[in-house]
Amino acid sequence: MSKRPLKVALLGCGVVGSEVARLMTTTADDLAARVGAPLELAGIAVRRPNRARDLPVDPALFTTDALSLATRPDVDVVIEVIGGIEPARTLLLAALANGASVVTANKALLAEDGATLHAAAEKHGADLYYEAAVAGAIPLLRPLRESLVGDKVKRVLGIVNGTTNFILDRMDSTGAGFADALDEATALGYAEADPTADIEGFDAAAKAAILAGLAFHTKVTAADVYREGITEVTAADVASAREMNSVVKLLAICELDPVGESVTARVHPAMLPRSHPLAGVREAYNAVFVESEAAGRLMFYGPGAGGAPTASAVLGDLVAVCRNKVNGGRAPAVTSYADLRVGGMGEARTRYHISLDVDDKAGVLAQVALVFADHEVSIQTVRQSGRGDDARLVIATHVATDAALAATVESLRALDTVRAVASVMRVEGE
Amino acid sequence: MSKRPLKVALLGCGVVGSEVARLMTTTADDLAARVGAPLELAGIAVRRPNRARDLPVDPALFTTDALSLATRPDVDVVIEVIGGIEPARTLLLAALANGASVVTANKALLAEDGATLHAAAEKHGADLYYEAAVAGAIPLLRPLRESLVGDKVKRVLGIVNGTTNFILDRMDSTGAGFADALDEATALGYAEADPTADIEGFDAAAKAAILAGLAFHTKVTAADVYREGITEVTAADVASAREMNSVVKLLAICELDPVGESVTARVHPAMLPRSHPLAGVREAYNAVFVESEAAGRLMFYGPGAGGAPTASAVLGDLVAVCRNKVNGGRAPAVTSYADLRVGGMGEARTRYHISLDVDDKAGVLAQVALVFADHEVSIQTVRQSGRGDDARLVIATHVATDAALAATVESLRALDTVRAVASVMRVEGE
Repeated sequence: MSKRPLKVALLGCGVVGSEVARLMTTTADDLAARVGAPLELAGIAVRRPNRARDLPVDPALFTTDALSLATRPDVDVVIEVIGGIEPARTLLLAALANGASVVTANKALLAEDGATLHAAAEKHGADLYYEAAVAGAIPLLRPLRESLVGDKVKRVLGIVNGTTNFILDRMDSTGAGFADALDEATALGYAEADPTADIEGFDAAAKAAILAGLAFHTKVTAADVYREGITEVTAADVASAREMNSVVKLLAICELDPVGESVTARVHPAMLPRSHPLAGVREAYNAVFVESEAAGRLMFYGPGAGGAPTASAVLGDLVAVCRNKVNGGRAPAVTSYADLRVGGMGEARTRYHISLDVDDKAGVLAQVALVFADHEVSIQTVRQSGRGDDARLVIATHVATDAALAATVESLRALDTVRAVASVMRVEGE
Repeated sequence: MSKRPLKVALLGCGVVGSEVARLMTTTADDLAARVGAPLELAGIAVRRPNRARDLPVDPALFTTDALSLATRPDVDVVIEVIGGIEPARTLLLAALANGASVVTANKALLAEDGATLHAAAEKHGADLYYEAAVAGAIPLLRPLRESLVGDKVKRVLGIVNGTTNFILDRMDSTGAGFADALDEATALGYAEADPTADIEGFDAAAKAAILAGLAFHTKVTAADVYREGITEVTAADVASAREMNSVVKLLAICELDPVGESVTARVHPAMLPRSHPLAGVREAYNAVFVESEAAGRLMFYGPGAGGAPTASAVLGDLVAVCRNKVNGGRAPAVTSYADLRVGGMGEARTRYHISLDVDDKAGVLAQVALVFADHEVSIQTVRQSGRGDDARLVIATHVATDAALAATVESLRALDTVRAVASVMRVEGE
């Protein structure tokens, strides 16, 4: 091991950053053996350098001047675990312009402006890796970028947000309502004080954009992703799913259309049969199904968040980019050569499960069925229940475009005999 | 795309090779875009060049002279899907010596002599990839080699043979005996005419050697792997597992000892609780659990065999090595720098489930319990059932070394009051 040390700048020292700094120190010998050269922490950019931190690193490494650290001429690799769009984007573009390779866990930035970062990396001959940005420790982006690169991915279907999965799992197993399950998640540390990014689906939408871009070699941003959170999911919805031997999950779904000309990306709650492998993903775990032409159906499962799991993904990327520095190689470029059209939610093909409170009189079913027929939506099953004021129709459709399904629901609302559309939930999984 | 074409030699054109040739032709544009240069089939080595093949390739590409093809000066990459030790080893060493990168699906060769191949690749600056050698299409080796390279893997636990999983799944779901389930697997094409390599665990043992080597950065060969097949698993064993809310699976288990100084690798049938994610892996699917220090528990699931899935893994590797040819990079070297001691089966830590036919008289349980105590094996539960000639003790142990557990069973056999050791099965999964 005569090689010169590789210098690593760490931007951010929160839950993930602390664990990265700790592992870089405690596993230094293993990392050096795997890279072929020792790694050295060049500095750690933080907002409060004097804050007490229980870390085995030299306190002199802490600095508030992130930009100077990120662009220091002797820095080989910059790790960014600050999060958010700015100042992260400015810092990473400056680091890449300086020839440093970048490892980041920043899903928001990649989903908003990944193409700019990739272009900068390509232009300056630097590597850009971000395994930790999606599904924490689960090796998922590298398989998509590299293992499945000789195959044609048709669909990515995943549970990529641990907070919402914990809440929905609790609602399923205890019968709790959304508010109570959220309170429990907060108390146990699974939800943040401001849970908006998780429960409104913003976090999952950013991950869906990254997954869709890699899977389909097409530029997809968070703004292209249809997004519905779980705040409207009621205990009644979950109970109704349970009756159908299904669960409600917040899914990120990225799909190629059947003729391969366009893609859609969406995040919303959906009913999934209990026999589907994703239905068994409990608590805050993540799992992602990938369907491709030759490989068939693959699933990747593991912890989707947490300091140590996320740090594992960061360190895997760090070793990869450092090996390239030692060997003079480059990570495969991520391109959007396929440049497929990104379609809106109306084009997505899905199924609906609809509960209608209806008048208890003859001819209602015929009237309702006619509305479905008018929109060319085919009904799979209808169940009538209750009498009088409790009369209800529960309808499951076959696959149709979301536009046709949504228009059907609108028309149903307009029927005199339909007193209320009690619930509408999409259904996924064969 | 002005780059010169990369020339690819294909050795073997069976189920996997045909699919590789077909996909290389039908997805040529996508592969070229992802590599950054077009790929060109330079030749296909087969035993019978004139055999009718329904492939969209020039018949002039077929040759019987595999060595000349593998060492042609213009060949950039050699794909080997012949299988077996020779002539594959000679061909691949010649190709590597010539500077060609190698993609292979040959688990037997890698498990016997992977170190020689890796050394040759390193010496001649060539890449060596073999994702298809373990668990077919499931991206598993690349995550181990690259994604988890900054972490410390503690355990790999997997179902890596589809044939035996199909047979055991059938025995579990229909109550069939081994012979009938094997017949069904043969009839459906899941078992080969000579099923020895699968049902005796040789195939799984080769894969375990490859997994242990990559996980622990240590040289492990197939001969280091303890191996028991499934031919002795009876319908009664499976029924007994079912009573314990467990299933019987053929597992490949690679473990680091608790102090991190030695590793063990083993393949044998074991009882697994139905709540374990691997218990739900049905039919011929494969799945591998990886437990690592920082990332926690990860699972990879998918089709473990078949022409198209295996070809997907081969093409993923092909794109990776071709990208390196275009960019001048190199795959990260696989080293056995950790060089841990490889321990024998006696050192492996496991649990036993033991059924004893015993004399129906007072004091038998005390006598049996004393035998366990003598070997310092702790009993978790005992169940007594039957009377007279049907008197039976069913014992589940806590964790102990396999040596202590095996010695306990030997001593039990020697007891006068034990009429027979009716079954012994290892138990895995918490």
